[in-house]
Amino acid sequence: MPLDQPAYHSAATILESFTRVRAASEALARPLSPEDCMLQSMEAASPVKWNLAHTSWFFETFILQPHAAGYRSYHPEFGFLFNSYYNQIGEMHPRPIRGLVSRPSLEDVYSYRAHVNEALTAFLEKADEDALAAVTGLVTLGCAHEEQHQELLVTDLQHAMSYNALKPVVYEDAAADIRHAAPAMTWRRMEGGVCDIGWPGGGFAFDNEGPRHKTYLHPFELANRPVTNVEYLEFMEDGGYDTPDHWLSDGWDMVQREGWRAPLYWRKADGEWRRYSLFGEREIDPHAPVCHVSHYEAAAYASWAGARLPTEFEWEAAASLFPVEGRFMEAGAPRSPAAAPQPQDNELLQLFGDVWEWTASAYLPYPGFAVADGAVGEYNGKFMSGQMVLKGGSAATPADHIRVSYRNFFPPDARWQFSGFRLARDIS
Amino acid sequence: MPLDQPAYHSAATILESFTRVRAASEALARPLSPEDCMLQSMEAASPVKWNLAHTSWFFETFILQPHAAGYRSYHPEFGFLFNSYYNQIGEMHPRPIRGLVSRPSLEDVYSYRAHVNEALTAFLEKADEDALAAVTGLVTLGCAHEEQHQELLVTDLQHAMSYNALKPVVYEDAAADIRHAAPAMTWRRMEGGVCDIGWPGGGFAFDNEGPRHKTYLHPFELANRPVTNVEYLEFMEDGGYDTPDHWLSDGWDMVQREGWRAPLYWRKADGEWRRYSLFGEREIDPHAPVCHVSHYEAAAYASWAGARLPTEFEWEAAASLFPVEGRFMEAGAPRSPAAAPQPQDNELLQLFGDVWEWTASAYLPYPGFAVADGAVGEYNGKFMSGQMVLKGGSAATPADHIRVSYRNFFPPDARWQFSGFRLARDIS
Amino acid sequence: MPLDQPAYHSAATILESFTRVRAASEALARPLSPEDCMLQSMEAASPVKWNLAHTSWFFETFILQPHAAGYRSYHPEFGFLFNSYYNQIGEMHPRPIRGLVSRPSLEDVYSYRAHVNEALTAFLEKADEDALAAVTGLVTLGCAHEEQHQELLVTDLQHAMSYNALKPVVYEDAAADIRHAAPAMTWRRMEGGVCDIGWPGGGFAFDNEGPRHKTYLHPFELANRPVTNVEYLEFMEDGGYDTPDHWLSDGWDMVQREGWRAPLYWRKADGEWRRYSLFGEREIDPHAPVCHVSHYEAAAYASWAGARLPTEFEWEAAASLFPVEGRFMEAGAPRSPAAAPQPQDNELLQLFGDVWEWTASAYLPYPGFAVADGAVGEYNGKFMSGQMVLKGGSAATPADHIRVSYRNFFPPDARWQFSGFRLARDIS
Amino acid sequence: MPLDQPAYHSAATILESFTRVRAASEALARPLSPEDCMLQSMEAASPVKWNLAHTSWFFETFILQPHAAGYRSYHPEFGFLFNSYYNQIGEMHPRPIRGLVSRPSLEDVYSYRAHVNEALTAFLEKADEDALAAVTGLVTLGCAHEEQHQELLVTDLQHAMSYNALKPVVYEDAAADIRHAAPAMTWRRMEGGVCDIGWPGGGFAFDNEGPRHKTYLHPFELANRPVTNVEYLEFMEDGGYDTPDHWLSDGWDMVQREGWRAPLYWRKADGEWRRYSLFGEREIDPHAPVCHVSHYEAAAYASWAGARLPTEFEWEAAASLFPVEGRFMEAGAPRSPAAAPQPQDNELLQLFGDVWEWTASAYLPYPGFAVADGAVGEYNGKFMSGQMVLKGGSAATPADHIRVSYRNFFPPDARWQFSGFRLARDIS
Repeated sequence: MPLDQPAYHSAATILESFTRVRAASEALARPLSPEDCMLQSMEAASPVKWNLAHTSWFFETFILQPHAAGYRSYHPEFGFLFNSYYNQIGEMHPRPIRGLVSRPSLEDVYSYRAHVNEALTAFLEKADEDALAAVTGLVTLGCAHEEQHQELLVTDLQHAMSYNALKPVVYEDAAADIRHAAPAMTWRRMEGGVCDIGWPGGGFAFDNEGPRHKTYLHPFELANRPVTNVEYLEFMEDGGYDTPDHWLSDGWDMVQREGWRAPLYWRKADGEWRRYSLFGEREIDPHAPVCHVSHYEAAAYASWAGARLPTEFEWEAAASLFPVEGRFMEAGAPRSPAAAPQPQDNELLQLFGDVWEWTASAYLPYPGFAVADGAVGEYNGKFMSGQMVLKGGSAATPADHIRVSYRNFFPPDARWQFSGFRLARDIS
Repeated sequence: MPLDQPAYHSAATILESFTRVRAASEALARPLSPEDCMLQSMEAASPVKWNLAHTSWFFETFILQPHAAGYRSYHPEFGFLFNSYYNQIGEMHPRPIRGLVSRPSLEDVYSYRAHVNEALTAFLEKADEDALAAVTGLVTLGCAHEEQHQELLVTDLQHAMSYNALKPVVYEDAAADIRHAAPAMTWRRMEGGVCDIGWPGGGFAFDNEGPRHKTYLHPFELANRPVTNVEYLEFMEDGGYDTPDHWLSDGWDMVQREGWRAPLYWRKADGEWRRYSLFGEREIDPHAPVCHVSHYEAAAYASWAGARLPTEFEWEAAASLFPVEGRFMEAGAPRSPAAAPQPQDNELLQLFGDVWEWTASAYLPYPGFAVADGAVGEYNGKFMSGQMVLKGGSAATPADHIRVSYRNFFPPDARWQFSGFRLARDIS
Repeated sequence: MPLDQPAYHSAATILESFTRVRAASEALARPLSPEDCMLQSMEAASPVKWNLAHTSWFFETFILQPHAAGYRSYHPEFGFLFNSYYNQIGEMHPRPIRGLVSRPSLEDVYSYRAHVNEALTAFLEKADEDALAAVTGLVTLGCAHEEQHQELLVTDLQHAMSYNALKPVVYEDAAADIRHAAPAMTWRRMEGGVCDIGWPGGGFAFDNEGPRHKTYLHPFELANRPVTNVEYLEFMEDGGYDTPDHWLSDGWDMVQREGWRAPLYWRKADGEWRRYSLFGEREIDPHAPVCHVSHYEAAAYASWAGARLPTEFEWEAAASLFPVEGRFMEAGAPRSPAAAPQPQDNELLQLFGDVWEWTASAYLPYPGFAVADGAVGEYNGKFMSGQMVLKGGSAATPADHIRVSYRNFFPPDARWQFSGFRLARDIS
Repeated sequence: MPLDQPAYHSAATILESFTRVRAASEALARPLSPEDCMLQSMEAASPVKWNLAHTSWFFETFILQPHAAGYRSYHPEFGFLFNSYYNQIGEMHPRPIRGLVSRPSLEDVYSYRAHVNEALTAFLEKADEDALAAVTGLVTLGCAHEEQHQELLVTDLQHAMSYNALKPVVYEDAAADIRHAAPAMTWRRMEGGVCDIGWPGGGFAFDNEGPRHKTYLHPFELANRPVTNVEYLEFMEDGGYDTPDHWLSDGWDMVQREGWRAPLYWRKADGEWRRYSLFGEREIDPHAPVCHVSHYEAAAYASWAGARLPTEFEWEAAASLFPVEGRFMEAGAPRSPAAAPQPQDNELLQLFGDVWEWTASAYLPYPGFAVADGAVGEYNGKFMSGQMVLKGGSAATPADHIRVSYRNFFPPDARWQFSGFRLARDIS
C-alpha cells in the first residue's frame, strides 16, 4: 500500500510513468523465447510469463475492475491464474505449478498486457479529477509493484537458466571488461543518538517504510564499501565453510544440509572459480562486491572478520547523507556488480545499486505501522516474520525504484537475489 | 535389447519403418506449442521436447556414432542433455529438471531430428550387407523405443495439461460421440496345465519377453472384458475408498496419504463425475473401461467383487487364442477407451488396445533371462523390482507396437498410464 | 556466559545455591519411572534422563575438568553422550536419538550426578581465593543453566506424556480447584522516550541480557493482564483458525499444514474443550491465561482484537515498575497458570510467572553484544536468528531464575512451552 | 490364519506349547532393563515391551474375549495400545509412537502377561471338546505369532541398541570363539519339471504357505551354502558399492540416497571391518554367511558373481530333500550365524537357520489362495505387495517355528533382519 496518494499528479504524469514502466518489463523479456518464459526452477521463483501477466492482473483487479466503468476482463480465468498471495481476492493458482501454465501462451499474455494498457490509458485520458484522485495512488503502487517484478523476473530467470547445461547468455553486458581494483576498505564513524528513520514523505513509498519514527543509535562505524569477491575468497580459503565457529546455528545447518561451499552460481573449473549470470559463465571479478550470498554467509563472514552487519537503522542513518546514485538496471537489461570507484573524502561507496546489503535487522513493523484494509493490505505486513531487511538496491533494480527508506526483505537462507553486504562495528 | 536381429530385413524395409515411426512422433507433437512441449509435471514424466530429442539421441548414440563413419554429432552437449537412464553412457542431465531445458528450443530439436533422420537415411541407403547386418536389430530397437516414447509423450502430456485451469483440448476425438452399452460381463473357462509363455520368435520383441519357457497354470476363469466405469462407480459408491477391507496394505496407505477418491483425472462437478483427457474435460462414459487406476485400485476392486486379477501367464495363455486387434493410437493422436463391441461366441473382448490391463504378476525375469552386455543391456533388466506387469496395450499405444508377449511394467501406485483391468477367478 | 563473575560470593553461598539447584532437578524427576525418563517425542525435546545428565556434564566439563586437579571423569563416553550444542567441545551424540539411550540407566545417571556433586562440593570446600575467583561465575552459570533445564524437563515431559493414551497424572496440583474470574482487561499508558534496557548489574544474568543500552520508545498502552482462555475461545469461535485475514503468512501456512484448530494440548470431548497437562486432562479454566500458543497464534489473536504484541523493550520498560512476583514452579513440581488476582490501582498483573509472554521482537543481539571466546560463548549468540523473544517466566520457571531483563527465545511456531501473550497498542 | 485346526490336539499338548512359547519370550527379555524395553529406533520396529504386550493382546482378543465366558480384560485401554495392523478390530495406537509408551510400565506388562496366561490356562484346563475344537487352531496360531515376535524382538532390539555409543553386550554367545573355514562353494544340479510347492499338511502352517500347488521349474543349479563375509568383502573391494552396473535401479538409488558402503551394522575401525550385534561389537568372522544385507545387495552380488538368486520355488524344491536342521535361536538368546560344517556328499548346507535367504520371488499369493474372513484374515494377505520372499529361518528364529514351506517376506531394502543369500544359476 502506498503511504500517500499525491493528488497533485496530473493524468499525463501518471500515464507517462505507467507507459514507461510497462515498456521496461517487455524490454527485459525481449531476448527471451516463449520457452524461456515458462521456466520455474523453485517454488519461491516464478516464470517470466507469470511475472508479465501478474503485473497486468494487478492493474486489472485493483484499478480497472473497480474504477473503470464497463471494463471487460481479458479472460475469466486469468484472475485465478495470475493472482499471487492475495488471499482476500479469492482462490489462487498454486504457486509451485506456475511453471505448468503453457497455455495461455506468451503471445496471449502480451495481448493481455496490451488490453490492460489500452484500457488504463483510455481511462486515465478521460478521467475527471475525482476519478484521478481515486486511482493515482493505486497506479503509482501498480508501477512500483511492476518494478519489483522486473527485478524478480531477472533473479528468477537467472536461477532457472543456471540449471541449463548450455550456460545461456541472455543479455549483453557492455561493461563486462571494465575491471579495476576496488579502493581499500576503511571505516566511517557515526555518532548515533536519537535519529529519524523511515520515509519522510514527498513521493511514493511502500507502507512498510513508515511511519517515520525516532530510534536511538549507539556510536558505530560503517565500512566505506561492500565486501568484495577477493575478500570473500579469503574467508573461504581460511576454512569459512568448514567450521561452525562463526556461523549462526541455523546457518551452519544450511551449510551442512545444502553442501554450501561458495556463493550461489559459483563453480570451480580447472582450479579456478567461475560464476554464472545472465551474461554467461565468467571468471570471478575479484574487486566486485560479493553477490548471491545468504544472510547466514554474510553474518559468518562478518564474525570471521571481527565485525558485524549494520542494523537497518544504522545503514539508513549513514546512507541518508549521500545521494541515491549507483549501478542499477538499465533499460532492457540488468548490469553486473562491479568494483567501487575511488572515494572522495570520507565517502561511503556503493550504498545504492550493485548489491542489496543484508542488515542485522529482522523485518518487523515500524512503531505505529498498521495494515491497510482490504486485499491491498496484504502487500507487506503479513510477511513480517522470519525475514531479514536488505537495503540499497542492486544492479538489477530499476533506478527510480529505490529510496534510502526502501526495505527489501528475504529469508536468511535466500541466495538468488543480488545480495551482498557491508561491515559495521561498535565503537567502545 | 531386441531378442533377434533378423538379417533378412532389406534396407528399404528398415528405412520405411524408420521414416514412418519418426513421422508419427512429429504428428503427435504437431498441435502443440513450444511452451506445451516444455511441460514436466512430475519426476516420472518428461517433456514432449525431451521425448522428441531423446529418441533421436538413441539413434545417434547406438547407431550413427559407432557405425556411420564420419558422422558429425549435432551438438556436443545433447548427449548429456538427452541421455536417459543409461548409466554406462556417461553422466546424464538430472531427470527432475528436464522441464528446465528451455534451450535448445523446440525448433532446434526438430533440426536435431532432421539431422539424425538424414544421416541415418543416407547411411542405410548406402549400407552394404555387413553394415546392414550390424545395425538392423538396433534400428528396429530404436523404432520400438520411439514408439514407447510416443505413448509416454501422450500420457506425460495429459498429466501436465491436467493441471491447467483452462482444461486444454489438444486432440480431436472423432469417436467421441459413439457411445453404446458394453456387453454383460461373463466368464471364460481356461483349463491350465503346462503352457508355453513368452515370445515365440519371428519378428521383433524386447529382451524381457523371453526366453520362451514353460509354466504351469491351474484352471481359472477370465472375464470377457475389462471392468467399466459404471461398474467401478458401484465400488466407489459402496465405500470402496472409505474402508481398508479390500485393500493391500500399501494401497490403503496411498488412499490415505494421497486422498484418492476416484480414478486419476476424475473430478466431481455439480454432482456429476467428469474426466479430463487430451480431448478436454467430459462426462464419464459409463460403458468404457475404467482407465487411470493404479494396481492398488484394481486389486481392491477385484477383492470387493469377489474375484482377483489374472497373472500375466493366465492373461497371455488366454490372449494367445485371439488376434491382436483393438482400439490403438491412430496417426497423430491417441484415442479414447470406449465400450466393447458385442462378442461373438465365447470371445474375450478388448484384450488389445483401449486400456493396459494390470496383472497380479510382479515384473521379474523369465527363467533363463540374461541381461545383454553394454549400455543397451540397461534397457529392461534393471527395472525388474517393485513393479507390476501390464498387458495388451491401450488406445495410446501404436498399433504395430503390441504383441501378446509384450510386458509393460509400472509401480503399483502409478495412475497416469492408460491403465485398467480385467477380473479372473479360481475354479475350485 | 554470565555477565559478571562476582568475586565477593563466599564458597558457602555458592555451595548452598549449587546444592539447592541440584536437589530441585531430582525432586522434579522423583515421580517418574526410568521408562518415563527415556521419552523423547520430538527432535526439539530431550528425555528427562538426558536433562539430568547433561546438566551434570556442564559442571564436569567447564569446572571440574579444567579446575579440579585430579578430577576423575565418571565415564569416558559421557562427554560424548551428554554434550549438547557445544561444537567446540568435540563431537556430540545426535540430538534426534537422545531417546535411544537406554544405557546408561537412570540409576547410573543418578550415580553420575552424585559423583559430580561430591567432587564439586569437595572442590569448593577446600578452594582458596584464587580458585574460587576462577570458578564462581561458572558455577553460577551452571546453576542457571540447570534451572533452564528444569523448565525444559517439565515442558518436554508434558509433550511426550501427551501422546500417552492413559493421560498420565504426573504431579499433584494443590491449587487445581481454586478458580475465580480474571479481572477485566484494561490498558495502562506508557509515555515512552529514551529508556534504558538490559541487565543493570548486581547479580547474575546471561550474556544476551546486555549490554544495558538506550532505546527509544514511542507512547503505547499495555494490557493489565495476559489474554485468557475464554477470550481466546472467542477468537476460535469467530473463525480465527479458518481465515487467513489476521495471520502472518508463515503462520497461516502452519495452520494449514499442521491442522491447528486450538492451542496445543486442547482436545474437544463431548462438545467441550479439555486440556492435557502433567496434572492430567481437565476441562479448560476459562479465566486462566491461554497457554501453549505459538507466536503466530498470539499475533493473529492480537490482529483480530485490533491490537498488537508489545516489543520486548516496551514490555521491559513497563515491567521494570513492578516487583518480580508471580506463580512459579514450586519445589518439585510446576504449577498451573491460573486467573490473575484483582489489581490494585493501575497495576500490571501476571507479568512474571504463569505464562511466558510472546513479544513482537525478534531475538537479536543488543548493541555492543559480543560473543565470549571458547565453548561457553556458544551459549546464546549463535541462536540469534529465526526466533522471537518471550518475557516474564512461567508457572514452570524456578522462582529465583527470572529477572525483568531475562530474554527467553523460541521459534515462532513453538507451542510446547508455557507460552501465552499480552496485548499492546499504539497511542496515536 | 492357520491352514488347519488339528482337532486331535489334547488340551495338555496345547497348554504345554503355550506355556513354553510364553516363557521363551520372557527369557529373551530377561537381560533387559525397563529402559531397554522402551526403545524404538524406526517406524518399522517395535519396542520389546510392545512385543511382549501385543502377543498377549492377540490371545486376549482372539481367544479369551470371544470364547472364555466371564473373561475380564486386564485394562480397557490395552486393546487400543497393543493392537497392531488389525484394521477390523478398531482404532489402533499409531505405530511410529510405540516408543512413547512409558506407561504402562514393563512390570505392568508382565502382570498383563500373567493375567492372560492364567486365564488361558484355566480356560484350557476346563475346556470341553467343543470349546477345545473352537480354539485349538487359534492358540496354535497365537503361539506361532508369538514366535514371530520373538525374532522381531531380537532384530528390533539389535537395531535400537546399535545406536548406543556404549555398544551394549546384551546376550552371551557361547559359540563366539568357534571359528573354522567354510567349505568351498560348489553347485548342486536340480532337474526341474512340474513340482509340488507349498504346505503339504500335517501340523501348523500359515495361510500364505498354501494351497499346495504345482509349478514348473526349469533345470538349475544351487550353491551348496550361503555367500560368506569374505566373499562379500571381495565384492566390496571390487567396487561393488561404487558402480551401478550390477544393481537393480531401485537398489542403486538406495546406495546413493543412504550411502550404503557395507552390510548394516558393519563399521570400519582402524582399517578393519567390525560388526555390531547383541553380543557386542566384534571383528567380522570371514567364514560366516554374510548377514544384514538387503535384497538389492544380494541381487547385486549375484549379478557381479555371474549368478542370480534362486526363486522361492527352486529353493523349496531343493530344500525339501533335506531335514529341517540348523543353527536357530536357543532358549533365551539368539545365536550368531557361523561357518557351515563340512558337507557330506552333495549336501546343501545351512538351508535352515543361520541367515534367512533372499529369493528372487516377489511375495504374492499362491494359486487358489483366499483371504480368511474377519480380522484374522488380515494376517498375511494384505502384505502381498512390494515385498520379496525369504526362506529357511535364521539364528534368531525359534527352532520349531520353521518349515520348508515357510514364507517370510520383507521389502527389498530391509536390512535389519538376519538376512543373507545363496546363489543359483541356469543350466543352458
